[in-house]
Amino acid sequence: MTTGFFDGIAPVTFKGPETDDPLAFRHYDPDETVMGKRMEDHLRFAVAWWHSFAWEGGDPFGGQTFERPWYPQDSMDAARRKADAAFEMFEILGQPFFCWHDVDLRPDQGNFADNLATLNEITDYIADRMKTARTRCLWGTANMFSHRRWMAGAATNPDPDVFAFSAATVKSCLDATHKLGGSNYVLWGGREGYETLLNTDMGRELDHMGRFLAMVVDYKHKIGFKGQILVEPKPQEPSKHQYDYDAATCIGFLRKYGLENEVKLNLEQGHAILAGHSFEHELAVAASEGMLGSIDMNRNDYQSGWDTDQFPNNVPEVALAYYHVLKAGGFTQGGTNFDAKLRRQSLDAEDLIAAHVGGMDTCARGLKAAAAMIEDGGLEDALRDRYRDWDTDAAKSMLHSDLGAIAQRVLDENIAPEPRSGRQERLENYVNRFV
Amino acid sequence: MTTGFFDGIAPVTFKGPETDDPLAFRHYDPDETVMGKRMEDHLRFAVAWWHSFAWEGGDPFGGQTFERPWYPQDSMDAARRKADAAFEMFEILGQPFFCWHDVDLRPDQGNFADNLATLNEITDYIADRMKTARTRCLWGTANMFSHRRWMAGAATNPDPDVFAFSAATVKSCLDATHKLGGSNYVLWGGREGYETLLNTDMGRELDHMGRFLAMVVDYKHKIGFKGQILVEPKPQEPSKHQYDYDAATCIGFLRKYGLENEVKLNLEQGHAILAGHSFEHELAVAASEGMLGSIDMNRNDYQSGWDTDQFPNNVPEVALAYYHVLKAGGFTQGGTNFDAKLRRQSLDAEDLIAAHVGGMDTCARGLKAAAAMIEDGGLEDALRDRYRDWDTDAAKSMLHSDLGAIAQRVLDENIAPEPRSGRQERLENYVNRFV
Amino acid sequence: MTTGFFDGIAPVTFKGPETDDPLAFRHYDPDETVMGKRMEDHLRFAVAWWHSFAWEGGDPFGGQTFERPWYPQDSMDAARRKADAAFEMFEILGQPFFCWHDVDLRPDQGNFADNLATLNEITDYIADRMKTARTRCLWGTANMFSHRRWMAGAATNPDPDVFAFSAATVKSCLDATHKLGGSNYVLWGGREGYETLLNTDMGRELDHMGRFLAMVVDYKHKIGFKGQILVEPKPQEPSKHQYDYDAATCIGFLRKYGLENEVKLNLEQGHAILAGHSFEHELAVAASEGMLGSIDMNRNDYQSGWDTDQFPNNVPEVALAYYHVLKAGGFTQGGTNFDAKLRRQSLDAEDLIAAHVGGMDTCARGLKAAAAMIEDGGLEDALRDRYRDWDTDAAKSMLHSDLGAIAQRVLDENIAPEPRSGRQERLENYVNRFV
Amino acid sequence: MTTGFFDGIAPVTFKGPETDDPLAFRHYDPDETVMGKRMEDHLRFAVAWWHSFAWEGGDPFGGQTFERPWYPQDSMDAARRKADAAFEMFEILGQPFFCWHDVDLRPDQGNFADNLATLNEITDYIADRMKTARTRCLWGTANMFSHRRWMAGAATNPDPDVFAFSAATVKSCLDATHKLGGSNYVLWGGREGYETLLNTDMGRELDHMGRFLAMVVDYKHKIGFKGQILVEPKPQEPSKHQYDYDAATCIGFLRKYGLENEVKLNLEQGHAILAGHSFEHELAVAASEGMLGSIDMNRNDYQSGWDTDQFPNNVPEVALAYYHVLKAGGFTQGGTNFDAKLRRQSLDAEDLIAAHVGGMDTCARGLKAAAAMIEDGGLEDALRDRYRDWDTDAAKSMLHSDLGAIAQRVLDENIAPEPRSGRQERLENYVNRFV
Ligand SMILES: [Co+2]
Ligand SMILES: [Co+2]
Ligand SMILES: [Co+2]
Ligand SMILES: [Co+2]
Ligand SMILES: [Co+2]
Ligand SMILES: [Co+2]
Ligand SMILES: [Co+2]
Ligand SMILES: [Co+2]
Repeated sequence: MTTGFFDGIAPVTFKGPETDDPLAFRHYDPDETVMGKRMEDHLRFAVAWWHSFAWEGGDPFGGQTFERPWYPQDSMDAARRKADAAFEMFEILGQPFFCWHDVDLRPDQGNFADNLATLNEITDYIADRMKTARTRCLWGTANMFSHRRWMAGAATNPDPDVFAFSAATVKSCLDATHKLGGSNYVLWGGREGYETLLNTDMGRELDHMGRFLAMVVDYKHKIGFKGQILVEPKPQEPSKHQYDYDAATCIGFLRKYGLENEVKLNLEQGHAILAGHSFEHELAVAASEGMLGSIDMNRNDYQSGWDTDQFPNNVPEVALAYYHVLKAGGFTQGGTNFDAKLRRQSLDAEDLIAAHVGGMDTCARGLKAAAAMIEDGGLEDALRDRYRDWDTDAAKSMLHSDLGAIAQRVLDENIAPEPRSGRQERLENYVNRFV
Repeated sequence: MTTGFFDGIAPVTFKGPETDDPLAFRHYDPDETVMGKRMEDHLRFAVAWWHSFAWEGGDPFGGQTFERPWYPQDSMDAARRKADAAFEMFEILGQPFFCWHDVDLRPDQGNFADNLATLNEITDYIADRMKTARTRCLWGTANMFSHRRWMAGAATNPDPDVFAFSAATVKSCLDATHKLGGSNYVLWGGREGYETLLNTDMGRELDHMGRFLAMVVDYKHKIGFKGQILVEPKPQEPSKHQYDYDAATCIGFLRKYGLENEVKLNLEQGHAILAGHSFEHELAVAASEGMLGSIDMNRNDYQSGWDTDQFPNNVPEVALAYYHVLKAGGFTQGGTNFDAKLRRQSLDAEDLIAAHVGGMDTCARGLKAAAAMIEDGGLEDALRDRYRDWDTDAAKSMLHSDLGAIAQRVLDENIAPEPRSGRQERLENYVNRFV
Repeated sequence: MTTGFFDGIAPVTFKGPETDDPLAFRHYDPDETVMGKRMEDHLRFAVAWWHSFAWEGGDPFGGQTFERPWYPQDSMDAARRKADAAFEMFEILGQPFFCWHDVDLRPDQGNFADNLATLNEITDYIADRMKTARTRCLWGTANMFSHRRWMAGAATNPDPDVFAFSAATVKSCLDATHKLGGSNYVLWGGREGYETLLNTDMGRELDHMGRFLAMVVDYKHKIGFKGQILVEPKPQEPSKHQYDYDAATCIGFLRKYGLENEVKLNLEQGHAILAGHSFEHELAVAASEGMLGSIDMNRNDYQSGWDTDQFPNNVPEVALAYYHVLKAGGFTQGGTNFDAKLRRQSLDAEDLIAAHVGGMDTCARGLKAAAAMIEDGGLEDALRDRYRDWDTDAAKSMLHSDLGAIAQRVLDENIAPEPRSGRQERLENYVNRFV
Repeated sequence: MTTGFFDGIAPVTFKGPETDDPLAFRHYDPDETVMGKRMEDHLRFAVAWWHSFAWEGGDPFGGQTFERPWYPQDSMDAARRKADAAFEMFEILGQPFFCWHDVDLRPDQGNFADNLATLNEITDYIADRMKTARTRCLWGTANMFSHRRWMAGAATNPDPDVFAFSAATVKSCLDATHKLGGSNYVLWGGREGYETLLNTDMGRELDHMGRFLAMVVDYKHKIGFKGQILVEPKPQEPSKHQYDYDAATCIGFLRKYGLENEVKLNLEQGHAILAGHSFEHELAVAASEGMLGSIDMNRNDYQSGWDTDQFPNNVPEVALAYYHVLKAGGFTQGGTNFDAKLRRQSLDAEDLIAAHVGGMDTCARGLKAAAAMIEDGGLEDALRDRYRDWDTDAAKSMLHSDLGAIAQRVLDENIAPEPRSGRQERLENYVNRFV
């Protein structure tokens, strides 16, 4: 017996680019081989429990618009119905992974003992469902920003009791992720930051956050969790300023607290935009440091100042993102989590399926274009050519020289560099051959 | 004999808040004691040679609007006339410091040998003028972004010859700064970044930039320069992305390359805004790491997406900036450089003087308000009170505990934190008592 | 008997700038005469029922933080307790006005008949309270954006039944405003706009919106309501694009539909910022068309891309706003509505009072500075001087000439205009003498 | 004899999507029929003289990077060489149109008489070249923002002599456009706006601007110019605020001054972005008023706050733009002007050709996708379906009813609208079938 919510919607299959079936894959064929690997194993798609099942359609100026068989979400009965619907959707989409916060799975009970008990109960239920399903857990995380106790932060709260509550909560969620066989554990510090510097001791809060993360890493090793620990940058919203501002800031933080070999990044397109970066910038920064862990795929409205978390639909942009992922070696434990929600006017079950189908197809097209560029090698050739003079012994030895010697050489040899074209438009045209 | 440019403008003096003399100081009294120090010694104002003397009023859609006795600026004769006018203005304003790029002082000659010779010549001339003037050199720097040779970066250029030219140029500018008794040497990487990731090897460029900066530090020690080495964050403009994005990014970079004890930051209000931060945020970040070196004071138009470099005029904002400066111990070698230019329609000599007078008065009011808040202690008291529970032994020991033990304690003691007001509006009202 | 919520908080009185009483007015003295009018009669402060009493502290990432004696707000009993608390606060602050949406006063009942009945009931209750209070109604409005029925707009909804429901709702709210003696009726079209152009017929929706507004104007005249009808511009949020984007867009819309003599604007600082304008820009645009009706006073965080609705605290900015209000003749039926909410961490009753006290003091300082500038006349003198050549007969007659004749005159007289300084910094310094 | 600048670059031809020739069209085949019209006649591509031939590679932080045989551009000899190179490029690209400012064609001579004489001379020269070329003039315009005389505006200048000089200049440019057989005449008010409201009488300036535009319209009729008069919206840059902010603002302005039937809009992608809109928004606004005249095609960097004027390269975005153009009936006198410049590091002649080839291909793909969507009709069907209830007589008659009657009907019929899905993601997926 099903929840009935998806009644009438058949499993989505690959029908090729020419189909006009709105609920078929036109580009995503999980078994197609791309650069020697199945497409599914490249992309490692995940559904986000929060956006697809817990979010009810509210925004700052309005409440619930959706109607779902598992509403209201204030009981364990509803939590189980919600899980049932989730697994129904995973099956319709052939989704290999899911991601969750504790409070997506069941309500916050208001005290830790009950939170712990109900989390264990619902994850047992989910583990049971997983026995007959193919969908795995990409990552789990703790929602430490919605309940009023977190209003001033979790690990960075001025109240040490909140730090304690946070530590207990993360322990419970990491235990649950471990139990569900998760590949990663993510921390997103939505309220680790400040509303006003007037009441904030930034240095102290950062020290607490560093210490907290170190404890998480220690605990991971203690319990033998083999997944990656990831932090997710976002500059602001809900807080005025969040400490995990962007990839560079997070990496600086990890290095300061000696965690650069233990923690990687989960990067989100919309958060990149809010921080003033392109998504590929964030990916390139993380990749250049060997810290690209996983991605939250979505898109942000370029004319909006807040995080719209829309499903991706621009293939050229997505292709550049996967180009950096592939260049960095592709996903190992990470994957492509759709941190994306329906528009609040998209009320129907069919909207929820169509949104994922469209997102998956967009990613599949992007991945194939990226792979084609990698295989063609045009961009790498151009890069090698542009920096070729740095491969000479003279150039290399200069890097181990000093200002005085270099200045003397500039005078002696009358070095007068002549600029060479950066060829940007030609490279952009090259990319457009593939997307 | 004078250049005649400032004819008819008398030295600016302090006449108190009630004066309606547009060219008198209403708040800046250099000799007034604030927190035990002369106001002049707190603020350490500097004039920026580039904005006040070299910039001709152009913008992306139009050319020169100003007419000055030292135009056109393509000869050493003009360079000397420009220096003469500068010292006339320093005297009118009673300005204790100035800052410069090499190309502000004399034109780029197109080759390094001539650049070196003319830089030495003009700085000799300036050193000579300094013998009879009270104005000192706050800092020098190299303009490695205007000439076409720098179009693809200086230290991060794909062409090692540009790296070499950059190294020679910085050596010459650091030598000149040392000769002029400068208190700091600044690097601003306007083109250290990229226009497109398609042609950029970010990891390699950052390694070069790290190495370059290490050489600068080595050279400083070699010649016995006692000033601070500073880098100046800015997220973009002229480049699409600049590596010295903001304070946190720069600090992460310095730590990665082992330079965190050798290099500090020169922070600019307008650049903070462009990076999505308030100015006090950038100051607080740097201060929390002990890396607040100096400031470029100006303001940015909040409705503009580019760097407008206007003179500061909003006292409440400036007061919060100096609050963080004073809290960090105030300036030692750093100071307040007006990295601010006239609007291009402000054609008159009187505009140039009035703009500095207004900026200095704004800073003086801000400083006094900040000092009053420090002395009153209200903000520090509130901070101490908000974090007081972290001063208990139980809280401190928790930081050296582990997730398992903390979770057990949360269960045993049924820890259920109750939020306390952050009192933001009350703190904002408190600040408004002083500004 | 009181609600007890404000227990221990005495009525706020004017104690002058030197007081350190956090709950006293330092600048707002209602009876002080400014430009021949009582300060209270200039400013015409209003409390916003929604922010101060209905909003529970939620944001997109978290729920209720506040605890109030009138929560939960789902009954008429609670609605009355809320009204009681409101009048207690009005008395503490000496507030002359309040503003409201229907759903601030009592819950949306889900159907129009009940909505109408409970609105009549609660406004009768409020009218009763007003008999013994001095606080009047500045304006009322209909919330046509929170309930899910409005998700695709009110007057611009693709469903004509929603248009009908909207018309009925506005009628009921305009009737209630009339009953309460309101001075204005406001429409804010938070969902009159679109999420995606793909499903939107913009021309048709604008025609419906124009027709709707014409009906509101007709109804106002029919019932003899003497207040102003106002629309409130905002560019986006909650919608991706709102038709009432900014002052210029609204004025163009009103002119297109022949309503320019019937409807004025209610301008909000935060909305100006979101539209890429300064607040004084929006005020100047409306004033130049004779359409400045009233203001929603608040401030927006300059680093945020959404509407933060904070209490104003920057005196120089507020002074420029009131300068334009006074220049336009000051408020007649309009006023200063605090469309501002506590930060969600500001939990205490004292925060709510302090926030208003701070906002009122900021406005009072701003008003006095603006009045001083008006009385001094320096800005108007500068303006007259800058445009003086347009007062000549030759210039005036040129405006009634033609291109051919003018071109001939330029040739004959060899007209070669010489630029004159715009004196921006000098004017900014002038303003700083007063704030 | 040629200028030699394009030596070695053959005419660009269509080779189809599979070619890897970087200087061939892969999608733009001028003779291919799309919706019954040749592709060339749909797109009506134009080269912008300013970006391609006059701009030397400068930005706010650096000067000239390009080297061209027609530099320096300060003589009529150079102006002719520049024109020769332009026609060489038109021929290589098979470009049907060009656009120009007076100062792109020859230098500003500093006085009107010489400006007039040299403009006539160079446009005679160009007219002569056009006899043997197939490239026509899409539009001309006057640069009234670069020379210092325009620093405070042209038609809105506080100095009536500048108004006169502007009127004479526009007359000369409109005469020249007429002589060259131009299809349109464009006005872009880069400095019609303000830097600070403190020195600006906005109402007066707008009246002058309205009067100026009316004179231009009168003169057009007088000389029998049959082209469209267009204004081009842009919110800011170079000015802090430009009066022609966006499409809605311009339309409101035109209606206020009675010009709505005489003047249409020239819309630019980058300017839309700067004003907080998508390009298709601006197109839809203009189309809904029947005022869509022509487009300036380019793209803006989404992470930049200034106008980057890059060549378009994102097909999905361009497809939506042409969808609105085609829906509005396509271009009649308007066209697709590449208001786009090379990146300043793109030094080579080949870059200039490649950039146009890439831009033209992007537009051709976009156009074909748009046409396919029009012919398929899916979006129009969805629109018709969404608004279908407004086609009933009951709904139509409601629009001619009044609030009282509607409210009564809502009560009588207990109208309780039930929301229907907006289907946004499904429509986005639909679009992705075509791009
Ligand atoms: Co995310
Ligand atoms: Co997000
Ligand atoms: Co600076
Ligand atoms: Co700057
Ligand atoms: Co408002
Ligand atoms: Co608001
Ligand atoms: Co344009
Ligand atoms: Co542009």
